[in-house]
Order: sequence, then C-alpha cells, then structure tokens
Amino acid sequence: MAERIKYSYRAHEKAGQPPGTPLFIGRRKMEEVRVSYIRYNENLHEEKENSTPKECADLCKSSDVVWINIEGIHDTGAIEKIGELFNIHSLTVEDIVNTMQRPKFEDFDNYLFIVLKMLSYSDINTGMETEQVCMILGENYVITFQEKPGDVFDAVREQIRGCRGRIRRAGADYLAYALIDAVVDSYFLILETIGDQIEEVEDQVFMEPNPDNVSKIHRFKRAMLFMRRTVWPLREEISLLEKSGSDLVRKPTVVFLRNLYDHTIQVIDTVETYRDIISGMHDMYLSSVSNRMNQIMKVLTIIATIFIPLTFISGVYGMNFRYMPEIGWKLGYYAILGFMLLIGIVMLLFFRKKKWI
Amino acid sequence: MAERIKYSYRAHEKAGQPPGTPLFIGRRKMEEVRVSYIRYNENLHEEKENSTPKECADLCKSSDVVWINIEGIHDTGAIEKIGELFNIHSLTVEDIVNTMQRPKFEDFDNYLFIVLKMLSYSDINTGMETEQVCMILGENYVITFQEKPGDVFDAVREQIRGCRGRIRRAGADYLAYALIDAVVDSYFLILETIGDQIEEVEDQVFMEPNPDNVSKIHRFKRAMLFMRRTVWPLREEISLLEKSGSDLVRKPTVVFLRNLYDHTIQVIDTVETYRDIISGMHDMYLSSVSNRMNQIMKVLTIIATIFIPLTFISGVYGMNFRYMPEIGWKLGYYAILGFMLLIGIVMLLFFRKKKWI
Amino acid sequence: MAERIKYSYRAHEKAGQPPGTPLFIGRRKMEEVRVSYIRYNENLHEEKENSTPKECADLCKSSDVVWINIEGIHDTGAIEKIGELFNIHSLTVEDIVNTMQRPKFEDFDNYLFIVLKMLSYSDINTGMETEQVCMILGENYVITFQEKPGDVFDAVREQIRGCRGRIRRAGADYLAYALIDAVVDSYFLILETIGDQIEEVEDQVFMEPNPDNVSKIHRFKRAMLFMRRTVWPLREEISLLEKSGSDLVRKPTVVFLRNLYDHTIQVIDTVETYRDIISGMHDMYLSSVSNRMNQIMKVLTIIATIFIPLTFISGVYGMNFRYMPEIGWKLGYYAILGFMLLIGIVMLLFFRKKKWI
Amino acid sequence: MAERIKYSYRAHEKAGQPPGTPLFIGRRKMEEVRVSYIRYNENLHEEKENSTPKECADLCKSSDVVWINIEGIHDTGAIEKIGELFNIHSLTVEDIVNTMQRPKFEDFDNYLFIVLKMLSYSDINTGMETEQVCMILGENYVITFQEKPGDVFDAVREQIRGCRGRIRRAGADYLAYALIDAVVDSYFLILETIGDQIEEVEDQVFMEPNPDNVSKIHRFKRAMLFMRRTVWPLREEISLLEKSGSDLVRKPTVVFLRNLYDHTIQVIDTVETYRDIISGMHDMYLSSVSNRMNQIMKVLTIIATIFIPLTFISGVYGMNFRYMPEIGWKLGYYAILGFMLLIGIVMLLFFRKKKWI
Amino acid sequence: MAERIKYSYRAHEKAGQPPGTPLFIGRRKMEEVRVSYIRYNENLHEEKENSTPKECADLCKSSDVVWINIEGIHDTGAIEKIGELFNIHSLTVEDIVNTMQRPKFEDFDNYLFIVLKMLSYSDINTGMETEQVCMILGENYVITFQEKPGDVFDAVREQIRGCRGRIRRAGADYLAYALIDAVVDSYFLILETIGDQIEEVEDQVFMEPNPDNVSKIHRFKRAMLFMRRTVWPLREEISLLEKSGSDLVRKPTVVFLRNLYDHTIQVIDTVETYRDIISGMHDMYLSSVSNRMNQIMKVLTIIATIFIPLTFISGVYGMNFRYMPEIGWKLGYYAILGFMLLIGIVMLLFFRKKKWI
Repeated sequence: MAERIKYSYRAHEKAGQPPGTPLFIGRRKMEEVRVSYIRYNENLHEEKENSTPKECADLCKSSDVVWINIEGIHDTGAIEKIGELFNIHSLTVEDIVNTMQRPKFEDFDNYLFIVLKMLSYSDINTGMETEQVCMILGENYVITFQEKPGDVFDAVREQIRGCRGRIRRAGADYLAYALIDAVVDSYFLILETIGDQIEEVEDQVFMEPNPDNVSKIHRFKRAMLFMRRTVWPLREEISLLEKSGSDLVRKPTVVFLRNLYDHTIQVIDTVETYRDIISGMHDMYLSSVSNRMNQIMKVLTIIATIFIPLTFISGVYGMNFRYMPEIGWKLGYYAILGFMLLIGIVMLLFFRKKKWI
Repeated sequence: MAERIKYSYRAHEKAGQPPGTPLFIGRRKMEEVRVSYIRYNENLHEEKENSTPKECADLCKSSDVVWINIEGIHDTGAIEKIGELFNIHSLTVEDIVNTMQRPKFEDFDNYLFIVLKMLSYSDINTGMETEQVCMILGENYVITFQEKPGDVFDAVREQIRGCRGRIRRAGADYLAYALIDAVVDSYFLILETIGDQIEEVEDQVFMEPNPDNVSKIHRFKRAMLFMRRTVWPLREEISLLEKSGSDLVRKPTVVFLRNLYDHTIQVIDTVETYRDIISGMHDMYLSSVSNRMNQIMKVLTIIATIFIPLTFISGVYGMNFRYMPEIGWKLGYYAILGFMLLIGIVMLLFFRKKKWI
Repeated sequence: MAERIKYSYRAHEKAGQPPGTPLFIGRRKMEEVRVSYIRYNENLHEEKENSTPKECADLCKSSDVVWINIEGIHDTGAIEKIGELFNIHSLTVEDIVNTMQRPKFEDFDNYLFIVLKMLSYSDINTGMETEQVCMILGENYVITFQEKPGDVFDAVREQIRGCRGRIRRAGADYLAYALIDAVVDSYFLILETIGDQIEEVEDQVFMEPNPDNVSKIHRFKRAMLFMRRTVWPLREEISLLEKSGSDLVRKPTVVFLRNLYDHTIQVIDTVETYRDIISGMHDMYLSSVSNRMNQIMKVLTIIATIFIPLTFISGVYGMNFRYMPEIGWKLGYYAILGFMLLIGIVMLLFFRKKKWI
Repeated sequence: MAERIKYSYRAHEKAGQPPGTPLFIGRRKMEEVRVSYIRYNENLHEEKENSTPKECADLCKSSDVVWINIEGIHDTGAIEKIGELFNIHSLTVEDIVNTMQRPKFEDFDNYLFIVLKMLSYSDINTGMETEQVCMILGENYVITFQEKPGDVFDAVREQIRGCRGRIRRAGADYLAYALIDAVVDSYFLILETIGDQIEEVEDQVFMEPNPDNVSKIHRFKRAMLFMRRTVWPLREEISLLEKSGSDLVRKPTVVFLRNLYDHTIQVIDTVETYRDIISGMHDMYLSSVSNRMNQIMKVLTIIATIFIPLTFISGVYGMNFRYMPEIGWKLGYYAILGFMLLIGIVMLLFFRKKKWI
Repeated sequence: MAERIKYSYRAHEKAGQPPGTPLFIGRRKMEEVRVSYIRYNENLHEEKENSTPKECADLCKSSDVVWINIEGIHDTGAIEKIGELFNIHSLTVEDIVNTMQRPKFEDFDNYLFIVLKMLSYSDINTGMETEQVCMILGENYVITFQEKPGDVFDAVREQIRGCRGRIRRAGADYLAYALIDAVVDSYFLILETIGDQIEEVEDQVFMEPNPDNVSKIHRFKRAMLFMRRTVWPLREEISLLEKSGSDLVRKPTVVFLRNLYDHTIQVIDTVETYRDIISGMHDMYLSSVSNRMNQIMKVLTIIATIFIPLTFISGVYGMNFRYMPEIGWKLGYYAILGFMLLIGIVMLLFFRKKKWI
C-alpha cells in the first residue's frame, strides 16, 4: 500500500541535526531540480521552462505576477540558495525539504508559507500516493516547490494562458488561491473514483461476500484515514489563511477563500460519510458471512441428525441375539425400512414446522 | 438507493474550470427553465406562470414583495443572465448551478444567499431523494432556484393567496423564513413516515428476524446518515441567518427564525435518536439470530448425543464373537432394548436438569 | 412502549399551516379545559377549582402572587383567548399546544416561557410516559399548562397551604423555581425505581441469563435514551434561566436556581451512569450466554467424541470376515469390552488433563 | 457491590419537601453526633475531643486557626443549629445532610462550601465505599462534616501536632487545601491497590481465562466508572476554587491549589488509562476464550472426522450379503485393518499439512 | 511490560507527608548523584564532568549560558540543596523527585519549570521505558534533572561543541528549546521503529494469523496508549510555553517553539493513526481467525455429513432379518457399493453447486 504508515523514512538521520538545518526527508523522485516560471499581467504573459532561481528573483522586482515552480526538492543546497534569494526563514527551508509535513499555514510577515498535499489515486490495491507542494506567497510572486514533475495545476496554467476567468486581472494572492483550489478540486475527483469503487464492493458484500472483500474494506478504511489526515489540517489552514488579516491577501480574494473553505468542508463531509459507510460495510460483511455459515452448518447438522437415529435402528437389528422375534418375520425387513422412512419424514416435517429448514 | 454516496457526477468536468465559472453539476431533471412570480402586498396579490427574468427584475423596482421562482437550473446561460439582472456575485451563480452544495448561508451585502435541500422519501428501498433549492433574499424580493417542478411550498402559496397568517403584512424576509419553515416542516413529515417504518422492522426483528432485516437496517442507517448531513449544516445556517445582523432581516422576523432554529434542533434530535435506535436494532438482530441458531444447534446436537451411545451398544451386540453369553439369553434382546431406553431417558433427564433443553 | 419513537402524531396536519397558527399536536387526554388558581401572599391564601381565564387575569392586577393552572390544551381556541388576555406572543401559544416540544426557555421581555416534561414510570414493559408542562412566568403570576389532570406539584401546593418553607414570603419567580424543582425531584424518584429494576435484571444476567433479559436491557436503554433527551435540554434551560438577567427573576432566587442546576447535573450524571451500566449488562449477557452455550456444546461434543471410536471398534468386530482369529477366542468378547472401557477412560483422563471437562 | 447504582435511598422522602429543608439522605453510620476541634497558630496547639458547637463558635472569634470536625450528620437538628451559629445558608445545610452530592464548590461570600468524597477500597468483591465530607472554609476556621468516625486526615493532624511543613504558619485556607490534598492522596493509594489487582487479573486472562474473570473485569469497570464520577467534578471544583478570587483564599495558597489541580489531572489520567486497559482486557478475554474453545472443538471434530469414514468401512464388511468375495479371503481381515489404518494416517497427515492440528 | 500501569511505586509512603516535602517516588536507577555542566557563549565553550551544585551556581552569575545536568534524583537532600542555591519553590523540588509526573509547564516568575518524558523502545515484548527529565529555565541557565545517565541530548552537546546551528549565538531559552526538540525528535525515531513492527505484524495477520498476534496487538495498543498519555500533555505544555509571555523566552525563540509545536502535533497525529491501524488490525485478526475456523469446521462437517448416510446404508444391510431379498443377489454387494458411491458423488456435487466447498 502506498499510504505507508511509517512516519518518516529518515527520522534517524534527522534526529541530531540542529533545528533549521535543511535535510531532505522523503523518497527522491527525480534527478535534477528544475526551475520554471510564468509571468503575467492583464496584458502580457510569458513562460520559461528552464530558468534559474536568480533570474526568477530578478523578475519579481517588476510589478507583474510571477509564479515560480520548482520541481525536485532533494537538493537541499539549491533550495537553501533560493531561500536566501527570497529572504526565507531557515525553518521554512527546513520544512520545504521535509516531505513529511502536515498541511499548514504560517505567516512570516514578508511572506506566507503554505504546505499542501497533492493526492493521486487509481486503484485500492496500489493505494493513495501523495506529493507535497509547498507554496511561498510574496508581494507579487508565488513559489511552488514540488517533489517531482507532474501536478494538478495544468488547469490554472490554461487559465493564465487563455486569459480565462479573472486570474490575469488579479494578483499573486488570487494565483495562490487558484492553486489551492486546484488541489481541492483534485480531491473531489479522487472521492468520485473511490466512491464508485466502494459502491462496487458494497454490492459484492450484499451478493456474495468473500474474504477478499475484507482486505478491500480494510484498505478503503486506511485510504480514508489517510485522506482525513490530509484534509482536516487543510481546512484549518484555509480558515487561518482567510482570517489571517495579512496584507498579502487582498480583500476580494477573501471571498474566494471563504468559498474554498466551503469546498474543504464538503470534502471532509464526504470523507466522513465514506468512513461511516465503510464501517457499515464491514458489519454487513460479518453479518453476511455468518449468515451463510450458519445456513451451511444448519443443513449439514440436520442431515446428520436425521441419519443418526436411523443408523441406530439398523444397528439394533444388526445385533446377533438368538431370540429376536422380528428377525424371523416375513415382512420384518420391509416393515423396518418403512418405519425408518416414517421417522425420517416425521423429523423433516418437525424441522420444517420449526422453520429450521 | 437514491442517497448516492458519490459526491459528484461531473467532478471531472468541474476540475479545471476557473473559479466562478458556472457549470451545471447534477442530473438534468426537466426540459426548459421556467420562470414564475408571485407579487403581493397587504392589499393586492398577483401571480404569473410563464414570466421572464427581465419582467421579474422590473417588478422588483416597486415596493411590493416579489417571489420569483425558477425551475430548472441546467441552463447555465439563463442563470447567468438572471445573475446579471439582479447583480449576483459570480461565485453565487456557480453555487446555484452546482446541485452538490451543502446547506449554507452567505451574506453578500446587497443580498443573502441561502442553500436548502428538499428531501422526499416514501419507501426505504427507493431511499431518499434530494432536490436543491437556492434562495436569494434581496430588499423586497426572494428568488428561488429549483432543479425541477414540484416543491413543498404550496402551503406558502396558499397562505399568500388566502391572506392567511401574517405573510401578506410582512416583508420579503418573512417570505424567506416561511419558505425555509416549509422545508423544515417537510423533514418532520419524512421523520414521521420513517419512524413508523422503523417501528415495523423493529417488531419483526423481535418476532422473527430474517436476513432481509439486515439490509433494511443498513438502509435506514444510510438514510439517517444522509438526513443528518443535510440537517446539521441547516442548523448552523439558520443560526447564522438569525445572528447575521443583516439589514435584510427585520427584527420581528428574528423571533420567527429563533423558533425555526428550535425546530431544526428538534429534527436533529429525532435523527440522532433514530440513529441510536437503528444501531440498537442491529444489536438486537444479532442477538436474536444467534439465539435462534444456538437453539437449533443445541437441539440437533442433543439428538445426536443421545443416539450415539445407543448406537454403540447396538454395535457391541452386533459383534460376531463366538462366546457372547448375553446373545444366547432368552430375554437378552428385550433386556438390552430396555437398557437402551433407560440410558436414553437418563440422558434426557440429565439434560433437562442441566436446563439444556 | 410508551416512549414512542415517532416524532409527531400530526406532523402531516401541521405542515402547511402558517407559522404562529396554534394547532394541537398530541394525544387528547381529557375532555374539557379546566382553569384553577391559587393566590397568596405572606398573610393570605386563596384557591379556586373552576375559574375562568378572565377572572384569573383580573386577579393578576393585585400585587399577590397568582398561580394559574390550566389542565387540557387541546382546545386551541381557549388557549388563544388566554394568550390574548395575558399578552402572549402567537409563537408561544403555538408552542403551548404542541406537545412535541423539547424543554426550552425563551425570554419575551414581558414574560418568560418555560417548557418542561413531566415523566411517569412504573414498569419497564409499559415504559415511560411523558406530559408536557408549559409555564409562563410574569411579573406576579405563573401560568402552567398541563395536558391532563394529575401532576407532581402537590408538594408545592402543600407548601403554599401549610405556609412551609419560604414560598409564601417569596415572589412568582420562586414559585416557578419550586415547580421546576418538583419536576426535577420527580426525576430522582424515577431514577430510584429504575435503578432498582436494573440491579434486579443485572443479578439475573449473572445468574441465569435468558432471552427475556435482552429485550429488557433493550427497553432500559431506550428509556434512558428518552430520559436523556429530556434532561439535557433541561440543564441548558435552567442555566439560561439562571443567567438570563431578566428582571422577572429576583436575585435571591438565582441562588436556588444554581442549586437546581446542580440537581439537574446529578440527574444527567445518573442517567449517563445507568447508560454505561446497561451497556455493560448487554456485554455481560452476551458473555454469559456464549459461555453457557460453549459449555453445553463442549460436553455434548465430548460425549460424541468418546463413543465414536468405540463404535468403530465394535463395528470392526461386527465384520463378517471368515478368518478373524479374535472372534474365536474364549475371552475375546470380554477382552474387547475391557479394551473399549480402557479407551474410554484414557480419553476422559486426557480431556480432563487438558482441562476440557 | 458497594458502589451502588441507586441514586438515592430516600429520594421518595425528599421529594415534596420545600427547598432548603434539611433532610438526611443516606445510610446512618453511627449513633451520636460528635464534635471535636483543633486550634492552632504558629506557637500554640490545642485539641479537644468532645466539644460543643457553641464552644467552637466562640473559639473562632480569636485569630487562631480552628478546625472543627463533626462526625455524624444524620441528626439534622444538630446540623441546623451549627448552621445558625456559623451563619450558613439553608441550602448549604440541606446539602450537608444529603450524602448523595457530587463534589462541588460554592462561594457564599462569607464562606466557601466544598463537597468531597472519601473513597475506601480493599477488594474488588466488596467494591468501593464512599463517605461524603463537606467543608466550610471561613475567615479563620474550617468545619468538616463527616458521615462517621475514621478518615484520611490523620496525616494532617500529625503535621499540625508535629509542626511539620508550613501548616502552622499558614491560615485556614492552607488547612482546607491540606485536607483536600489528603483526600486526593488517598485516591492515589486506591489506584495503586486496584492497579496491582488489575495486573493480576490481566495475567490470568492471558494464561488461563475463566468465567470468574469476566465478573471481575465487570466490577473493575464499574469501580472505575464510580471513581471517574467522583474525580471529574473534583477537578472542576479545585479549578473553580483556585480561580474563585475569593478573599478567603490567600495568594500563596493558590500555588498549592494549582499543584493540587495537577494531581487531580493525574488521578483522572490514571482512571482513564485503567478504563482503557480494562476494556482491552475484556477483548483479550473474549479472544482468549474463543481461541480455547475453537481449539477444543477442532480437536474433537477431527477425532470424529477420522473415525466416521472408518466406521463406514467396518459397516460395509458387516453387511450380510451372501456374495462378498473379500469376506472369504484369508487375509481379508488384516488387509482391511491395514487399509483403515492407512486411511487414518492419510487423514492425519492431510490435517497436519493444512495446519489444522 | 515496561509501561507499567501502576501509578506509583510508593504512593503509600507519599500519602501523609505535608505538601512540599520532597520524597523520591520511582525506581532508583543509579548510585550517586552526578553534576556536570556545559558553559558557553559565542566565543568560548567549557565542560566539566564532576562538578558541584555550588560551583554551578557561581558560574551562573556570569553572563554566559550554563547548562547544568544532574543525573540521579533519588537523593532528595542533594536536590533540596540545589533548590535552595537556585531559589526554587519547594513544590518544584517535590515535583522533581517524583518521577510519576505528567509533562507540564509552570511559570514561577524567576524561572520556568518544564517536565519532560524521555522514552526508549526497542522491542514490543520489553515495551516502552520512560525516564523523567525536569528542566529549570532561568535567566541564563538551564538545569536538567535526569533519573539516570544516558539521554537523547548528545546531538545538542555536539551542536554546542561544534558550534553548529545558532545555539552558540542564542540564549538559555534556545538551549531549553533545543533540548525539548531533541526529546520530540526521539519520539519520531520510536514511531519509526514501532511503525515498521506494526507493518510486520499486520502482514502476518493477513497471511497466517496466530494467537501470538493478539498479544502483540494488545501490547502495541498499550504502548500507543502510553505514548499518547505522554504526548498530549506535552503538546499543551509547549503551547503554554510559547504563549506564556514570560521574559525568560525571547521573541526569536518563539518562532522555533511554534515549529516545535507543529512537530508535536505530527507526533500526536501519527500516534492516533497507529491507534486506528492497530484497532483495525484486531478486527482483521478476528475476521481472519474466524474465517479459517469456519473453513476447517465446514470441511470436517462435510466429511461427516457424507459418511453418515453411507454408514446408515451399510447398517441396513448389516441387519439380520431372515428375509432380505437383496442379500441373496449375486451382485447385491457391488450394486450397493455402487449405490453408495453414487450418493457420495451426488452429495459432493450438491455441496459444490451450493459453493460450500
């Protein structure tokens, strides 16, 4: 399963370092750090794929909105250098390269620091995968740090390029909002996928429960646990961001953040509902299995119960006593066969009357 | 089941759109958008079935109270146009056409935005159906957006027509209150229906539990889960509305909202009680089934236990040893039959004494 | 069971009425509305059984304390007339005739409105019965509305008549306190009764569990659920009353309300403890039953297990092979009987050593 | 069990009395009310065993600290007289003689009223016993009301006599603190005892579970429930006392109360941990018993399963057909015995391979 | 198990001592008290292994930062003397020598008192071990009290020695922060270890559940319970420390404390997740075991069920009736064998069709 329960892969390396020492904690997912930027204002729009931190820092001196995207955070030296260029606190740098963060929001007067988690999910057997995205929101720039190439921000890029929505007219704060919104939207997609799969398993549990269901239910449970751990702090984070009163978040953007907050509540709501449903499914499974088992044992026991007395009767006439009058009767054999048949039928009728079969 | 666990039917389309883009999310339930209005003051009252947004917007310039009802929200273009006519924020328009909202209240200075959920329920097998109603409360008008024709507001219409209660003397805020009240009243009706059905199933569980009960209990659980998700945010919504301090809600109406809040608490209370009862029923069912099963297995096992030793005895006298004195006895056969009868009776008495049968 | 789970008996009639329309919701429990009053001050005391609302309203103009008791609330017209006489808000009148209220407190400047629930309980099979008491506390009068004759207020009447305690020296607020106190005291009585019954069932569960216990436990659970629903809002109600700061509650009475609040906490505490105990009893019952069942099945299975191998041996010597040397032995029969006895004993010893019997 | 679930022994007498009427509620535990006092300041120390309330009240006029201890509270008249001497509110007097109080703190300007519960515990079969201690903290005196002789305050007396610690230099508030501290310390002793016993039962549950464990676990659960009910309100009580801001509690004592509060938290923490552990033990017991039972049933069923086919074979050769070739074979008997042995061994190997035995 | 449930080893000695009397509560873990110090400022750094309290107290008069580490707290006299030298409240001294403290923070104007718990864990069978660390943070010194030599602070020492990070440039408050940080980091290490072990057991539970798993799960549960009890108050402690507003904590350090607080939240989050996972594992185990057991019983019962009717048939032809036509048939024996085979096969097919095997 991808949503590992292990807290950290390199906690043993981390322990012992002075606080504020950037140390990459996580799995290295790509080779080199790649820096790209998108710069835009209401009229122009410029993109560059392979840029350098220095070049980006210079861009930020203009009044345009600049979105600097950094892919790959395992090179702590490079990240530290970016930190210096943009005047970022050493604790923030430490947090950026530690992929084991919870979503959180911190206000460092000259910038806001936002930690997000991108989730990807396709199949319950492979489980959920997570990628940490850190965001620095400055006066007129947003810096995003991703673990590896590929993200859920293409839609935002399209909006900037195609000049759709209000993004080109708004500032860096709106860009930050749009990015967080893209992450939350991606959660809805995951919930949609997982919801379908849950319904599928649920139908199976009703129809023909099998042990495989248990492990699937167990995995769904775990995936929801994982998602919950991601979304609850996100909700708090957005609420703090909305209420921060920081100058970096302009008033019109606050309305959007409030809307985003509602979306997060919806995600939480859905996650909690799924959790309830999954837990109900487990109960259903147990009922269903125990019902089947009872059914089987009952039938088998009834068969045995019918034949045991009959066997006894045949045993009686198998005894070798010299003086057993019935033995000599002409129709004794048929009489006893009939008697046994009768007993069998009476027992069956009795069981049926009792509604046991 | 109607109360689908899937969050959204078109989340995959939604994701990627710039925020504020109205995109219909839901199942299309009717053909064309229909606009109707009721306009009234203390003295006059006027209704029109097939009106246009433009006409309605003009009406609102008078001092009369106007209730504009829009059925069908799948035509995002039409809704957007209405939004422009009434000066509605783009985020609100986006929310109106997204039927996956939770009940919520938002205060946009010039209007209040209220999301409600109408529920309909008849039978546990078909489950609960939901229809979203969005409400815009302006200075002297209320606009309601429904997914399809048919609603729970006929009583309000009757009050307006018949000039019953204080509705004709009060403003648009009272109209909004009356509409929310109608929705909450409809929840009571549903709870009444479902309460009767729960009691019915409960009696069955006591009398003769069958596997069908389990799935019904499961469905009741799910329906209550669903209802709870609807009513909890409603409670918060009404509380916010009551305390909003908006100029759009006049003081006399606040008393009514407080009363409505109490009703919502009552609904929640009942839902929570039903949940407790349903969960108790599941336990009862398990106890009941396990009790029956134990009873059956005990009887069957006792039958087997009585005959197995008897069969053994008959087996002994079925052995072919040449020198078995009892074999030759005149009354050996009868003696042994009597002996077996005796053993059987002793065992029965023993089991009875032990209270096993 | 009396503590019906159905929310309302006439929700379907209620729905559709304009808010503030008094509509009797409940079961009619008596024929005619009866109005009586007790009027007193430190020196005099006067009672009248069959009075009229008008007469009572006139009395209230004096400075004496007047307690007006109205039995029967199904006649909404009569109640409305009383409402007009005492200047009561239409929402309050609506609440008075709706017996499905939760205990609540509302402050309408000129009077306080208090909803209480009288409970009566004798036997777990008939369950709890509830009667709603609404109270209007005005400047120098208290009006109580009861569903039917008979209440828990006789002690208060005796105190007024006998001039016991401080009631005759205190105002209407103290009277209201004394009445609420009487209701809370009656809860203690019920808890005492039900506590004894719980202990009785608990002993049975330990000694000889039977299926009847389950349904009793189930009913206790339900009764406590019901009581809890009644007492929790009562606690809040008294707290609000104590802290209301209304002029209608004088300072010395606040000390008594604080004391009453403590009593309510005690009731809640006891109810919660009972709930814990009842839930523990259910577990005990399951353990106990499963233990007995295991015991029985074990003994039966051991009997079968001992005889099955012996039957096999006898079967072997029942075979008809021509050349079976043992058959011809003089003492073969006795030898084999002894051998079988030996095997039986060995098995018994083995089972005993394993602590299976 | 001593920790009775019944709320009150005489609720039925209490109900109907006007509030503020002292009525003894509890079990009478001694014959006569005994009044004793300890009076001290930094230099002198005086004790008297059989004093009178009057004498004590006179002592309090000096500036020395006076601790008046009253044993026996069933004589409501005597308690009322003390109440008058020390100017105590009638509600307080009522509370003192009602042994069914929860721990609570009340501030009556001229004195503080504190209710405590002394617990005593030795064995889980006799359960916990409780004795109520009420405390009145005045300017320079502390009055304690106990139900019967014998308490946990001997250590405090020794400190006063031996002039140990700061007690002789401090005021009445420190004395009150020291007494509450003694009660809390006694809880630690009980938790130590009960903790040892829980560990003992836990070992048994692991090693050889027996039904007796269940009832012990049940009793531990109940004892912890009881203790919890006692300690939670105590925590609140001490917190209120610390923060009361009453002139009767001097500043240096507040530090000690804060420390005492920490101790209460520790008690609660331990109680909650025990509850978790006890609840885990119940699960362990069920697992353990079901494991043993499964083990037994499996072995027995395997024995039966092996012999049933063998018996069938012997049955076949016990048939009386005239033409059965094997019957006539010289070594038929031995061949068939060998065959049966083979089948038995094969089945055993099969079961072993399947890891069933 | 090391995480003993007993609250205190010497509660019975403690009870009866006046408050503020230092009394060692815990297990003595070393012989003599050892005092060492590290003294540093930005330029110099000095360490001494065997120092005396007096010498340390003198050092603190300089403006350098001094970290005094005391190992061994069982010698209450020595601790009291240190308390006097540094002007520590007697309640603090009492707390230092009581190893049963919960993590807590107290602000005594001239110093801050911090209680921490170092945990060590290697194997679930030996369980968690705990060592209490008390910390006094003064103007320019930190005093740590440990139960025995060996701690998690070596990394901090290395930072001081190697002049790494900002520790040498910062004050005593930063040192205190660094020490707490080291403790929290060590929790991450433990969680990493225990997380691996949980995954291992989880795999076993899926593959081949055995009773040993139960006791391991039980121990994991207990260990997490224990860890939780340690970390929850720690979180509160750090929050209080951050918000204390004490002059002893300088502003730049507060940022670090906020970061530390986030780490604590992460620890709690992980602990809670593990708890959920462990509890899920228990359910998995039960499902898994019951599934296996059902499988076995089903197969065994099916074997018995097939042979019982066959044995009956053979019993019929073992009867000694004189007139049984089939007996005389030439091919009777083969016919009946064939018939029995047929019945066996039919039953097998029937069971297979029913999906019972």
